[in-house]
Amino acid sequence: MPRYKITFSYDGSNFHGYQVQPKLRTIQGELEKAVSYLNRQVETSVQSSGRTDGGVHALAQVAHFDLSIEIPEYKIKEGLNTLLPNDIHIIKVEKASDQFHARFSSKKKEYIYKINLGEYNPTMRNYEYQYGRELDILKMMEAIHFFEGTHDFTSFVSSEDMREDKIRTIYKSSIKRNKDILVISFQADGFMKYQVRNMVGILIEIGNGKKEVSDVERILNLRNRKTSIKIAPAEGLYLKKVWY
Amino acid sequence: MPRYKITFSYDGSNFHGYQVQPKLRTIQGELEKAVSYLNRQVETSVQSSGRTDGGVHALAQVAHFDLSIEIPEYKIKEGLNTLLPNDIHIIKVEKASDQFHARFSSKKKEYIYKINLGEYNPTMRNYEYQYGRELDILKMMEAIHFFEGTHDFTSFVSSEDMREDKIRTIYKSSIKRNKDILVISFQADGFMKYQVRNMVGILIEIGNGKKEVSDVERILNLRNRKTSIKIAPAEGLYLKKVWY
Repeated sequence: MPRYKITFSYDGSNFHGYQVQPKLRTIQGELEKAVSYLNRQVETSVQSSGRTDGGVHALAQVAHFDLSIEIPEYKIKEGLNTLLPNDIHIIKVEKASDQFHARFSSKKKEYIYKINLGEYNPTMRNYEYQYGRELDILKMMEAIHFFEGTHDFTSFVSSEDMREDKIRTIYKSSIKRNKDILVISFQADGFMKYQVRNMVGILIEIGNGKKEVSDVERILNLRNRKTSIKIAPAEGLYLKKVWY
Repeated sequence: MPRYKITFSYDGSNFHGYQVQPKLRTIQGELEKAVSYLNRQVETSVQSSGRTDGGVHALAQVAHFDLSIEIPEYKIKEGLNTLLPNDIHIIKVEKASDQFHARFSSKKKEYIYKINLGEYNPTMRNYEYQYGRELDILKMMEAIHFFEGTHDFTSFVSSEDMREDKIRTIYKSSIKRNKDILVISFQADGFMKYQVRNMVGILIEIGNGKKEVSDVERILNLRNRKTSIKIAPAEGLYLKKVWY
């Protein structure tokens, strides 16, 4: 069975997250409906690099699936984009080896988080966190570097995340400002549920003076989920890239 | 009765345009509901600088209304933002003279239109025209200047616009590119129904080779509504500023 790798983007606003759930509109649900139709109505599962929560967007998510027959890549792209709703878009389709697995073969991921420090913007309310006040960005820049390197991220992960191994490596992080928009970026070997939103949450609290720069290291060392971090809302978060 | 001038932004995606219509969700309808509530439940009309069509956004629209009692500006702003849905936002409230009229006192307006020449972007599908191909921008820049100055714009106006005087003055126009996003801007003493979307429509057709640069002047001179211009879709259009 030929295996295909797809790269796709989506607007998470009107989805109940990525993963299939009975009776709820999910990204995986819509993808599997379209791919199964293309695959001569054979029910086909679509494996992504990882789940995203409700309201979270993707600029270039990756998934794979197996078809019962070979179909040219450009025809799969055209076919899926015709079948899919307008809040999911297939950017690229590539033939992949049988060994390729969107989740297990991934080497690195990048997430970005957008915050609007300026006036509330109704057109961007689902695409940036409308924070609406200034933040001490120099302090946030100082603090973000304490996330870099290999750490046990238990304190920054949802208690719903059942994976035992909470150790991840953050290769790179940055904060950039363009006019009123702050973009925070993290590149890591992997991320756990709510991890980026909790890391951004503490950075915002450092930026508004409710927490100290030193709290990042202190809370990392606690390795305790019951810390008092205010999680940043979903709408500012984008899966930007997956490396293989 | 004290008069107030408000400056506000909105996401036009989920509105049936600006003007009140029975049983349909409109921007004026939502504003009048909120202002009337604030005005001790007295039905109060809200006059804007002009209508926008369904799907068209505003970065800084202006309107005025009269209250039966004086209320401090900051309280009106807070009150309205609490009462209004999250796709309308009051930016500023100012006390105005009895002579001020949001529509008749306006001197100049700016509209901008956003086109994405790059890959379809699902998160921006309601906020940019997802054109998805390259355009000959130099030709479009050449053509746009023929709109500047005082002209009879009959050929570029909807037949629904019943105003007799179709002469308007465009003071300034520009086309700017930032990565894949093209932003076309027009400043004029006023605009008529579908005028900007028709002007952008012909510019796109010049950019893709279906029309010539010289067609702008030729079609302007026809002064005929039944020209074959392909109107640009609503989602790329923003009312950016109103001058008084």
